[in-house]
Amino acid sequence: MSYILVTGGAGYIGSHTVVELVNNGYNVVVVDNLVNSSYDVIVRIEVLTRKQIPFFKIDLNDHDALDQVFKLYPIQAVLHFAALKAVGESTKFPLNYYSNNVGGAISLLKVMEENNVKNIVFSSSATVYGDATRFENMIPIPEHCPTGPTNPYGETKITIENIIRDVYANDKSWKCAILRYFNPIGAHPSGLIGEDPLGIPNNLLPFLAQVAIGRREKLSVFGSDYNSKDGTPIRDYIHVIDLAKGHIAALNYLFNHKDNGLCREWNLGTGNGSTVFEVFNAFCEAVGKKLPFEVVGRRDGDVLNLTANPKRANTELKWKAQLSINDACKDLWNWTTKNPFGFQINNYSWTKFDSESLTNYDRLNTVRTFNGKFEVSISNHGATIVAAKLNGIKLNLGFDNLKGYLREDNPFFGATIGRVANRISKGDLLINGTHYQVGLNELHRTSLHGGTYGYNKRTFLGPIVKTNEKEKETTMEFVLIDLDGTEGYPGDVETKVIYTVRDTGVGGELGIEYEAKLLEESGRDSTAVSLTNHSYWNIGNQPSIEGTHIKLVSNKHLESNPLDSTPTGKIVTSTDLDSQNSAKLGPDGPVFDYCFVTKQQDKLDTRNDELRVVATATHPKTRIAFTTLTTEPAFQFYTGDGVDVAGVFTKRSGFCLEASRYIYNPKWFIPLNKGEVYGSYTIYRFENF
Amino acid sequence: MSYILVTGGAGYIGSHTVVELVNNGYNVVVVDNLVNSSYDVIVRIEVLTRKQIPFFKIDLNDHDALDQVFKLYPIQAVLHFAALKAVGESTKFPLNYYSNNVGGAISLLKVMEENNVKNIVFSSSATVYGDATRFENMIPIPEHCPTGPTNPYGETKITIENIIRDVYANDKSWKCAILRYFNPIGAHPSGLIGEDPLGIPNNLLPFLAQVAIGRREKLSVFGSDYNSKDGTPIRDYIHVIDLAKGHIAALNYLFNHKDNGLCREWNLGTGNGSTVFEVFNAFCEAVGKKLPFEVVGRRDGDVLNLTANPKRANTELKWKAQLSINDACKDLWNWTTKNPFGFQINNYSWTKFDSESLTNYDRLNTVRTFNGKFEVSISNHGATIVAAKLNGIKLNLGFDNLKGYLREDNPFFGATIGRVANRISKGDLLINGTHYQVGLNELHRTSLHGGTYGYNKRTFLGPIVKTNEKEKETTMEFVLIDLDGTEGYPGDVETKVIYTVRDTGVGGELGIEYEAKLLEESGRDSTAVSLTNHSYWNIGNQPSIEGTHIKLVSNKHLESNPLDSTPTGKIVTSTDLDSQNSAKLGPDGPVFDYCFVTKQQDKLDTRNDELRVVATATHPKTRIAFTTLTTEPAFQFYTGDGVDVAGVFTKRSGFCLEASRYIYNPKWFIPLNKGEVYGSYTIYRFENF
Repeated sequence: MSYILVTGGAGYIGSHTVVELVNNGYNVVVVDNLVNSSYDVIVRIEVLTRKQIPFFKIDLNDHDALDQVFKLYPIQAVLHFAALKAVGESTKFPLNYYSNNVGGAISLLKVMEENNVKNIVFSSSATVYGDATRFENMIPIPEHCPTGPTNPYGETKITIENIIRDVYANDKSWKCAILRYFNPIGAHPSGLIGEDPLGIPNNLLPFLAQVAIGRREKLSVFGSDYNSKDGTPIRDYIHVIDLAKGHIAALNYLFNHKDNGLCREWNLGTGNGSTVFEVFNAFCEAVGKKLPFEVVGRRDGDVLNLTANPKRANTELKWKAQLSINDACKDLWNWTTKNPFGFQINNYSWTKFDSESLTNYDRLNTVRTFNGKFEVSISNHGATIVAAKLNGIKLNLGFDNLKGYLREDNPFFGATIGRVANRISKGDLLINGTHYQVGLNELHRTSLHGGTYGYNKRTFLGPIVKTNEKEKETTMEFVLIDLDGTEGYPGDVETKVIYTVRDTGVGGELGIEYEAKLLEESGRDSTAVSLTNHSYWNIGNQPSIEGTHIKLVSNKHLESNPLDSTPTGKIVTSTDLDSQNSAKLGPDGPVFDYCFVTKQQDKLDTRNDELRVVATATHPKTRIAFTTLTTEPAFQFYTGDGVDVAGVFTKRSGFCLEASRYIYNPKWFIPLNKGEVYGSYTIYRFENF
Repeated sequence: MSYILVTGGAGYIGSHTVVELVNNGYNVVVVDNLVNSSYDVIVRIEVLTRKQIPFFKIDLNDHDALDQVFKLYPIQAVLHFAALKAVGESTKFPLNYYSNNVGGAISLLKVMEENNVKNIVFSSSATVYGDATRFENMIPIPEHCPTGPTNPYGETKITIENIIRDVYANDKSWKCAILRYFNPIGAHPSGLIGEDPLGIPNNLLPFLAQVAIGRREKLSVFGSDYNSKDGTPIRDYIHVIDLAKGHIAALNYLFNHKDNGLCREWNLGTGNGSTVFEVFNAFCEAVGKKLPFEVVGRRDGDVLNLTANPKRANTELKWKAQLSINDACKDLWNWTTKNPFGFQINNYSWTKFDSESLTNYDRLNTVRTFNGKFEVSISNHGATIVAAKLNGIKLNLGFDNLKGYLREDNPFFGATIGRVANRISKGDLLINGTHYQVGLNELHRTSLHGGTYGYNKRTFLGPIVKTNEKEKETTMEFVLIDLDGTEGYPGDVETKVIYTVRDTGVGGELGIEYEAKLLEESGRDSTAVSLTNHSYWNIGNQPSIEGTHIKLVSNKHLESNPLDSTPTGKIVTSTDLDSQNSAKLGPDGPVFDYCFVTKQQDKLDTRNDELRVVATATHPKTRIAFTTLTTEPAFQFYTGDGVDVAGVFTKRSGFCLEASRYIYNPKWFIPLNKGEVYGSYTIYRFENF
């Protein structure tokens, strides 16, 4: 197993190329100093590609840190994107540009040489040509056009090109592809990744997008007196997806070039020039309205025409841009509407949750409501609710770090439970007439909460964090790909857990949406899914749940087989609730561990059902009211009498309200078939009364 | 007080420029990573200029260390020499060149910018022009000749030029002089500094010098079929002193250019081309013999003619090369014969002696004899003999570090004693009829050993270390400039202390030569000088001198005034010596503290006198024989009965044999007059019997 190292993999072009690399079967390691990008990009790439991407926050000038990455992963080739890239800024802070771009490249090349990694694809730029109109017959620009950058940014690019050529000249075993980009535009069609410039965008389309979404007043067109059909300058705009694919083509070219090294430049452009007005009109069409603009004076250093001659790449790399400016505008607008402020989410933050890991796969993701009263922290490990707080009061049981959750005596604190929640007698799962033996983890008698390696033990991808100011809510979407055969369950299942942290004015609430489907590529036609969350709540701000008043919507629950706690198939009436379906929890009783049912189980996806209050709990000491609402037909109410986390938590430290399906029993069971969707929605609401 | 920071100040051109800077009244700080140079260069510059030069061993890529220097010294301008400079090597290790040269320059410029230092003189190279013969009419090469280097070394130089131009373009308050050197040759006429290439020299004259001195067999002439008068290529050779002066001219130009910034390139060349054979012949003439050579094939990348057009520097900088190729050859040969192996002395090493100082002014300099038996360590502080060892046995009293020597109770251990050794009654010094009051430091009654701030407390410059394989000796020359008025003594006196560590076959010896003169610029006609060394010897490898047999050449000593231990003017006979002038030293006696006289005091410079054995000491336990030889007319023999260094040394831990003049008394005193030289020579020899 070998890896492609992508520097600047969290940047605009880098991120799109990482997606293409993964789609083409390459393993990728990303390093990025994140000065101009966000780790959220990596998270989104992981969700998009359903793959974990090893990531290291490293500045390329840090030789030793970079070397460490080469020691950890067998690197086969480097795609070197990392660079500062704003032309205007480069004239103001040239030394930052030289230090970051040239210094970084030198350091990278040294580490590569020291580790005997000699394949590199370098992100150069059409800027190296400078004003190609200074020559006769150099539009469209071929690779042999003499270079002559007119700003420090372009100088850094040509300098790095020269360094790479000198490295190759000395050691002909290097394989170096120098890719000169023209004007990349557009975004990933998924709307998950795209360009996210900090500050005022320098480029036409990102600026236009901000005008369209209402962040900028109007577009300034720098000169309409050029010698083009409409007076505005001509550029070669290339969809970032096409550009990303150009890197795959270049990389494959290097790998297929087996006999000796090479060092060669390729233009990546479409070969077709478009004027500013043409692009402006295409984007207005994508948005569906005419956007405001103003023609102002020419900008220093702008020239009439910078169109690529891409023939060398077309023929040698067998690569050609496929997408149109209209495609790019559509994708950009999709990205912009879905992420009006790019990756920036103010009320979201994360820290590493697995402090012993070199990677960031397991993080603790925290979102606070807009009113600042309610805060929830979710770990990637088990998509677990690690902490929920109302006005600073902790509402649930949990540990501070991953180690706690790995304890043998951890009673599923806060975890997502799946693939099938609760117990399956003898692990005998019957789906559409076929018996499956699923993992037994209770004295080889029952399968509990998905078995030994249930969802509570898995590392979820994500979260994709989005915020909706109008609804005063922020969502964190986690994804798990649960492969066929794991713990005996059939079929590849994609499970999404979408947490919504919502401001309710007087308090806050946490919505949990589950969605699961059998993946197309899965070899199975049906499977079983039943999901819930196993949080232990304690609203008394004290060690015990004692004093909590509880009121349930129903006093009917499934009858348990006393041998293994699985349902007998009968529904019985609780004897521990009063006539109002209420109870006051004492130090030792009443003891609840029953699956209460509120309605018939008749749907695979309950999300369109009424969202009903199924339980309320209050505590006189803290005056916190805790309401559980769900679309689900049942909920397990458990007073935590079996909790025994040595030295930390004892019995009745917290209670569970696990909105869910009926506990598995063939008579109630609804399978998940190919093409169907499993879904549910539950809210835990916390307010002071 | 402001400073010029010189990067690469220990290198060939840098070191010569530092000398010129100091000669022109500038204060200099040097940083150098010493990868291709030696700290000895700095020591020699200090001796040459009689100034301490703050030096920091820093790699320019170490931003924080460099920043620290800017915080410590108010830097006015930077002369940036530091670079790797071998064209051939640069094609083999291009990344080292980019990292060191380009990376280093970027880091330096960033630190300058951060510290608001915006004056720079940059060492560029004629190499940036590449092959100027590719154009019509570009020989001699003017500054407007298009650049186009043909190797990574030249690429690094043009890249740094571009970076500097970009920095200036953004901030017009910078003043940047870009100096393009042609072919520097020659050495400082003092023979103290010169070019010292490691490995095989790349350049014509250093190679030739090594042929002349016998380190290389013959010169290879790369092609004699060029279109020149003798068929060899033409270059513009410039004496390194002229080149150094060009930097002073450029610096002054920057400082005089007051109204705004500037960034400009200047060629530093003579304007006259010389062929390889012309230079070869000039050097043969300097050496006085025909040197062997062989014509071989042309070298890749060599071109016919690289001669400067230096008119811009001539007119704008008002600088013009003055010295000829013959001057350069003479100076190079002088440097080569005086330093056949450059700065490389294998049996010499140094460590910092003042561990708390940021500078290296006070070092501990250690030389070992060729036979490895005898080793001496001298500190710059007091040019003090800190340690002498025979076969690992310590022979003297001393401390491990500077702190010990600064103790109040340090009885002048190992120190150089001056300006006048021993006691002057009432500090009343009579020189040619004039009374001088010199520093009283013994209960305001006598001046002892030069006063409170005697030579033992001064930091000496040097050592200049040279080795003579034939004589099996290595010399360390220290210099002190003792200014008029210090401790009341009249006149600026230059004092040299030259230690020679010599292999005697069965053991080793330490020669001490003293030389002093009144400096020309001194306002005085005469002064007093009397120098000695105050080592305490102990050859018994035990805490006390007990058991040492001592035999003196004379039993006559000066009579002491019991009131203040100054001489009465009478010479008396010792009562503590036997008929052989011998004594065996016991735990408490005999007690000696007398100035024994061996001959009349009749000369200011005794160095041409007979070198006589004046004392021998042996110890039966170690079987070490210690012989003192001197040209001096007297010696103080002291059994150390006053030693009391709390917790470290007690009385009779060591004895002194201070070869010297008679203790000061007007009737014996010989003044040092202008134009005269004070001198003496003493040897301490240690051998096993």
